[in-house]
Amino acid sequence: FPSKQAQVQTTIFTRMSALAAEHGALNLSQGFPGFDCSEELQALLAFYSKGHNQYAPMAGVPVFKQSIADKTCLFYGIDIDANKEVTVVSGATEALFCAIHCCVFPGDEVIMFDPSYDAYDPAVRLAGGIPIHLSMDAQNGFQIDWEGLARSITPKTRAIMVNSPHNPTGSIWTENDLDALAEIVKGTNILIISDEVYEHIVFDGKKHYSVLLHPELRQRSFVCGSFGKTYHITGWKIGYCLAPEYLTKEFQKLHQWVTFSSATPLQHALSDYLKEPDHYLGLSNFYQRKRDLFASAFEGSKWKLLPSHGSFFQCMDYREISDEKDVDLAERLTKEIKVASIPISVFYEKAPGDTILRFCFAKSDEVLLEAAHRLVQL
Amino acid sequence: FPSKQAQVQTTIFTRMSALAAEHGALNLSQGFPGFDCSEELQALLAFYSKGHNQYAPMAGVPVFKQSIADKTCLFYGIDIDANKEVTVVSGATEALFCAIHCCVFPGDEVIMFDPSYDAYDPAVRLAGGIPIHLSMDAQNGFQIDWEGLARSITPKTRAIMVNSPHNPTGSIWTENDLDALAEIVKGTNILIISDEVYEHIVFDGKKHYSVLLHPELRQRSFVCGSFGKTYHITGWKIGYCLAPEYLTKEFQKLHQWVTFSSATPLQHALSDYLKEPDHYLGLSNFYQRKRDLFASAFEGSKWKLLPSHGSFFQCMDYREISDEKDVDLAERLTKEIKVASIPISVFYEKAPGDTILRFCFAKSDEVLLEAAHRLVQL
Ligand SMILES: CSCCC(=O)C(=O)O
Ligand SMILES: CSCCC(=O)C(=O)O
Repeated sequence: FPSKQAQVQTTIFTRMSALAAEHGALNLSQGFPGFDCSEELQALLAFYSKGHNQYAPMAGVPVFKQSIADKTCLFYGIDIDANKEVTVVSGATEALFCAIHCCVFPGDEVIMFDPSYDAYDPAVRLAGGIPIHLSMDAQNGFQIDWEGLARSITPKTRAIMVNSPHNPTGSIWTENDLDALAEIVKGTNILIISDEVYEHIVFDGKKHYSVLLHPELRQRSFVCGSFGKTYHITGWKIGYCLAPEYLTKEFQKLHQWVTFSSATPLQHALSDYLKEPDHYLGLSNFYQRKRDLFASAFEGSKWKLLPSHGSFFQCMDYREISDEKDVDLAERLTKEIKVASIPISVFYEKAPGDTILRFCFAKSDEVLLEAAHRLVQL
Repeated sequence: FPSKQAQVQTTIFTRMSALAAEHGALNLSQGFPGFDCSEELQALLAFYSKGHNQYAPMAGVPVFKQSIADKTCLFYGIDIDANKEVTVVSGATEALFCAIHCCVFPGDEVIMFDPSYDAYDPAVRLAGGIPIHLSMDAQNGFQIDWEGLARSITPKTRAIMVNSPHNPTGSIWTENDLDALAEIVKGTNILIISDEVYEHIVFDGKKHYSVLLHPELRQRSFVCGSFGKTYHITGWKIGYCLAPEYLTKEFQKLHQWVTFSSATPLQHALSDYLKEPDHYLGLSNFYQRKRDLFASAFEGSKWKLLPSHGSFFQCMDYREISDEKDVDLAERLTKEIKVASIPISVFYEKAPGDTILRFCFAKSDEVLLEAAHRLVQL
């Protein structure tokens, strides 16, 4: 059988979570909360299990689209038209897939910054596009090399993938970063596909700079969002895409052939839930405490913690502990000390040979402390 | 902005349902039940709203995959390996999209029989494939022209789309049809993508002949299934793909980039629910009664009812009532007598000029009788 994706394996998240389960390891690999969503949200789902079980409209349940628009307006201080700029989809993965597929023609180039989330590159290839990987440097805080980006633009550049707060590194963009990107794309037809699923998890009083805040960027951006990370419901697979009307039209054409519409009872439950800002405004503090708890357990150890400014990921450099490859160490730690993590080399086209593992700290305090306890003994 | 799908409109289902809502029409257009799912299933969803809210495994929750395999074994008397042959997806639309995209290379031909469900053609084109449309003849009970099919096979033929019970016509395949198809594909590399979402809705004591029942076909088939039509939950968007291991591997590579996984609480609720065969074995009788109730209201009228052997659709020929085009009549009826239907010409590449509308009879008896009442007065 001629495989269309002969080189493609099962995603690292599936492999590491399966390995963790097999070895009874603490699973700090795949990014999902080790605790349940709020009882209030559970009760809403139970409530909407009655009478809301048929097809949602293709672009989303109208009250839910309005709730998403209202929440976005409130949080970012901008206007969003619920009817023309919002599409509900089955998770941010679908949002990314449809955004890429609705604008990338065969032969088009799409620029992404490595380490980059593992779904970007294959989605671009499947659309017939050419992924262009630019590297961010761990030694330099994973900053974007703006001059390198400017040099990489060609007449074939269709889109640039943006991701802040950043998975896997936990770095975040500043207002200057938005300006630098805007400077580069101004006067071109280049689109932006911005993965902002960690928008509500930003630490140390810092702020999330959405591309929505920058008019030059916003007019050319698909913003891919999700409720999974914000409300501890990674398993609901409800996400959305915000884009100007001319892009939303193209996006919805794709979405209608890919999944057509998303789960109705989940949309209704979320529509009510996200009206209350308290349901997301406390999230940064919640995770900052976990980040700090986890980090404090490594003080004085040989692990070198990289800065985590957002997301629920902590990257750690193990160069003083081992000279193994990160993929080998991640596997060995899962089997031997029973702590699973993600080797960040898998997020690179050409791995730079860094000695860094990514740990998800969206876990109970007990799990975090026990995992740290095992890791510091290495 | 250079549109990748410049000719593509919003699907007929979205347009007709919106028009129906706008004009307060009885909506017999888009295929979904006008009633809720069972209280037992609602209660299961309420129950699983606690503690099952994080990512499901990419291929599906293991107990759910096993339930799907068990149900399929029981109903068809065949073996299915839950781990190697089952993938849970976000609705049959995603199953069709991934099946097509995982095997269709640019330039490959995919054969489909018109009238054909509206998602097949664009999915093939988006994969870079070439849809080859063969027509079925309304006058001939929408039978497949097997000689025509045999003549249409070329070295570029990658796959054939199959759909029984058939949307929009309500025709069903016989055992002879399976044999005829098997004869044509035997010894080739041609794959089958079989849309069987109406598997449990077959009338008059007839039987659903799944491609799973024919070894020559099964070994080369993606079977796309759904629970939406079977359990009155079109809004849950939970479907699945059954395929031999070598095809399931390719299918999952696509699925992991398209949506990654599907809603966990919904998978758990369904996993329990589909263990009870009574939850689907009575469905054919349930809908047969509705079909007959609806049909009886047209006795002696000028509407000519085409045979409906399965699905929840009734096609009706209006040649004695009007010589309008079906798209015009469907729109006029929605606005004037406030009954919405689907014009079947939209399911053809080249509409044959038939005078046929499709009506969904998955509605309350009252709605069916009132719709019929309005229609017979034309
Ligand atoms: C879709 S599974 C991956 C979850 C995640 O975003 C991560 O672990 O990085
Ligand atoms: C995905 S909306 C279309 C529902 C349906 O299958 C139909 O009406 O034919």
